[in-house]
Amino acid sequence: MDFITKLAKAREENNSLLCVGLDTDMDKLPEHILETEDPIFEFNKLIIDATKDITSCYKPNIAFYEAEGIKGMQSLEKTIDYIPKNIPVLLDAKRGDIGNTCDKYAKACFEHLKVDALTLSPYMGWDSISPFAKYEGKGLFILVKTSNDSSPDFQDITNKNDKPLFLEVAEKISHWQKESKATLGAVVGATYPKDLKIVRETLGNLPILLPGLGAQGGSAQETVQFGCGSDGKAPILVNSSRGILYASKDKNFAEASRAKAQEVKDQLNSYL
Amino acid sequence: MDFITKLAKAREENNSLLCVGLDTDMDKLPEHILETEDPIFEFNKLIIDATKDITSCYKPNIAFYEAEGIKGMQSLEKTIDYIPKNIPVLLDAKRGDIGNTCDKYAKACFEHLKVDALTLSPYMGWDSISPFAKYEGKGLFILVKTSNDSSPDFQDITNKNDKPLFLEVAEKISHWQKESKATLGAVVGATYPKDLKIVRETLGNLPILLPGLGAQGGSAQETVQFGCGSDGKAPILVNSSRGILYASKDKNFAEASRAKAQEVKDQLNSYL
Repeated sequence: MDFITKLAKAREENNSLLCVGLDTDMDKLPEHILETEDPIFEFNKLIIDATKDITSCYKPNIAFYEAEGIKGMQSLEKTIDYIPKNIPVLLDAKRGDIGNTCDKYAKACFEHLKVDALTLSPYMGWDSISPFAKYEGKGLFILVKTSNDSSPDFQDITNKNDKPLFLEVAEKISHWQKESKATLGAVVGATYPKDLKIVRETLGNLPILLPGLGAQGGSAQETVQFGCGSDGKAPILVNSSRGILYASKDKNFAEASRAKAQEVKDQLNSYL
Repeated sequence: MDFITKLAKAREENNSLLCVGLDTDMDKLPEHILETEDPIFEFNKLIIDATKDITSCYKPNIAFYEAEGIKGMQSLEKTIDYIPKNIPVLLDAKRGDIGNTCDKYAKACFEHLKVDALTLSPYMGWDSISPFAKYEGKGLFILVKTSNDSSPDFQDITNKNDKPLFLEVAEKISHWQKESKATLGAVVGATYPKDLKIVRETLGNLPILLPGLGAQGGSAQETVQFGCGSDGKAPILVNSSRGILYASKDKNFAEASRAKAQEVKDQLNSYL
């Protein structure tokens, strides 16, 4: 099933705009989990079991797995395999390179790891995106306005017509969609609600991934209202990672994670 | 030994500006290599043996290893381990993410893979670079003007003062260097020699990685003359990957690779 259909079904089935970020950090896991043979996978398994009826997507960030070397990559493979087939998997990898290299990244993500969607960096332009866009039905979320404090360094630089770079990227995404077999989308930080509003207007009904709620301080109300657009129906994935994963360090941490996920889900729905 | 010293020593010892790109592609290996247990490592081993007295650096692009899954990552680890300790290893990965995620990428690259230097994407700004910049003595090559056809899509967009984005990035690199324990540098495509000239003037003596010679069509003469700056002494790494690796598919391919590497090295030196 293609990414955008799978996302819509999961959203409807679980009545949720929430995307659970699997940024599973060895430095933050409960002690009893660290004693198991594959702590990252054991942790993820319990988080997935506890949230699979509350989330519309899982988003592992590959950096947290690469940080543990080969063993970490094995934990990532096992995690992706464990995620129920009705919930899409978005791999946060922010890749971008010349064409023949991106063919290889696409192979790694779509043929080896078999994820439904991927994040990409736009700096190198269309021919760094197009190798991924050949994969029919996949989702490609391109960085537009990121959630971090330094995102204005380059993303807010304006041209002669006062148009910021991030908006140039959003306009290109809209344009590139015509040549893409994959569904393109944008990454916009929940920490920049005004920019989200403009990007939504530019992108029409293309999906937007919204990190930056919770630990980074984004507002749920503005995220939903600006993200879902004027008819309230445009697809968004509101990501929460740390707030849910590390809600508790107790034996029963997964219950605390479930409660936190439910809370975020309900809060988001309350603004629909 | 820190990256920049190691590079200078290797450059002097081998009298070479050449960086050999280990973009080892399973689809392009000689047949007799494909029959071995670990074709990527076997191929790299022979290439390294044949070029270690001709090159000043090796640059594996991680995408080619990720494309083969866990097995590919094992081949990468073995390759890095096999490279003689007097030649620096620059991992081409073009990473970039929020701070706590980049801490993990830095751990993956500098603590697990133990490379001397890394390429990074600037789109997310300083706090996506700073986690890497804490690693004293490492080299960080930030994308400025890339070698691909689509690099003008965003990199050439100009602000009100007619300054293109790539130059804003180069100026920031110069500025960020003051706060960095690592040595910052730039990636500039040999395919854009005029832009290289401007970036070299902006960066002073910081190192520049120059891909795009050979398969992509950059000129060796302009690359050396503009890359090495007005005194001819600024550090550059002129990368060649496909032209050297796939010089032949015969049993004796490594000899053909050596001859090609020698030819590129000599050509570069002739313009010094």
